[in-house]
Amino acid sequence: MSDSIKTLIESRVSTGLYDTSRTLSDETVNELVRLATRAPSAYNLQNWRFIAVRSDEAKARLKAAAYDQPQVLDAQVTFIVCGRLAAHEGLAEALQPTVDAGIFAQEMLEGWVTEASASHKDNINKQRDEAFRSASLAAMTLMLAAEGMGLSTGPMSGFDPVAVSEAFGLTEKDVPVMLVTAGYGSDENWPQKPRKPLDQVLEIV
Amino acid sequence: MSDSIKTLIESRVSTGLYDTSRTLSDETVNELVRLATRAPSAYNLQNWRFIAVRSDEAKARLKAAAYDQPQVLDAQVTFIVCGRLAAHEGLAEALQPTVDAGIFAQEMLEGWVTEASASHKDNINKQRDEAFRSASLAAMTLMLAAEGMGLSTGPMSGFDPVAVSEAFGLTEKDVPVMLVTAGYGSDENWPQKPRKPLDQVLEIV
Repeated sequence: MSDSIKTLIESRVSTGLYDTSRTLSDETVNELVRLATRAPSAYNLQNWRFIAVRSDEAKARLKAAAYDQPQVLDAQVTFIVCGRLAAHEGLAEALQPTVDAGIFAQEMLEGWVTEASASHKDNINKQRDEAFRSASLAAMTLMLAAEGMGLSTGPMSGFDPVAVSEAFGLTEKDVPVMLVTAGYGSDENWPQKPRKPLDQVLEIV
Repeated sequence: MSDSIKTLIESRVSTGLYDTSRTLSDETVNELVRLATRAPSAYNLQNWRFIAVRSDEAKARLKAAAYDQPQVLDAQVTFIVCGRLAAHEGLAEALQPTVDAGIFAQEMLEGWVTEASASHKDNINKQRDEAFRSASLAAMTLMLAAEGMGLSTGPMSGFDPVAVSEAFGLTEKDVPVMLVTAGYGSDENWPQKPRKPLDQVLEIV
């Protein structure tokens, strides 16, 4: 199987049906999230958090918070991909390894923290937008990484964020942005659905 | 150069410095957006719109709306990636090719339109969340597709959305979610910055 990025993008399908006889190792779950966190985030905030729902008990909890959609039980794992609010508060710590690696200087870190704090501190809408952006970028990276490992995924926005937060003890700073089921898809999933013609969505100026 | 997805994810850097001597063809811009729109969206809403800013005149307009960040001039192109509000209104049209291709039946389309309309119609927050999700998933797909084509990209959330909307005649339904510069990066960009250890961002339950 070719895993050129073009092939992966064109062959990915949003998967609802999984082969329930299979399992996924800790190692694979870890690798998916490791690659997901290579996604970019503003200031390298890394304002995300992943809960990998894999046990029967946790799957049942998540299904109840996701309008009883069965794929949450059938998939080998479902990731609750959260963005985090007030991420500027953790920026200095998030960037310290960049300074330690000699990529940029301590003054740059301090400048970024000052700038991010000034723009985010009293702006909950900006914090929320940033949480949605970062979590979604990471989720897409995870889905394409999975595709390259021969796995299938299905993004879901159909869930009750309050119920998910309660069921998994999320803090008030964690915004559940998307669920992503992952595992071994069955052969009965729909093919990728057609997209709009380019001239309906793109303008070059 | 290997273009395995793992390599692409690990080698992508958020690029601010571009080789200004190069240009990018219409064909390449089109191909990037064609692949970006293969990203998933809820109900296959495809609630996105791309403006590829490539002329000197348009770049100057965008730079003024992006806090004068110079990479908007230097990059071969900058995509204004918009999510769209009230996307349920266009869902029937967006899904018709799926019915025409025999992937699912007309009744399924009608069911999805009814369901999406019920949940989105009077819920501007949900519409906005969906716009941010879809546009960000498409933006990440575009960035990895670009990487596979030997191009560099840089996502930017540092812009004034109102100014961008005014400068490019966006409608009130278009939400500019992210700018993505793209082109030929110079050799002076930072390497990919270190990420948090996995145990700080992942919990398996």
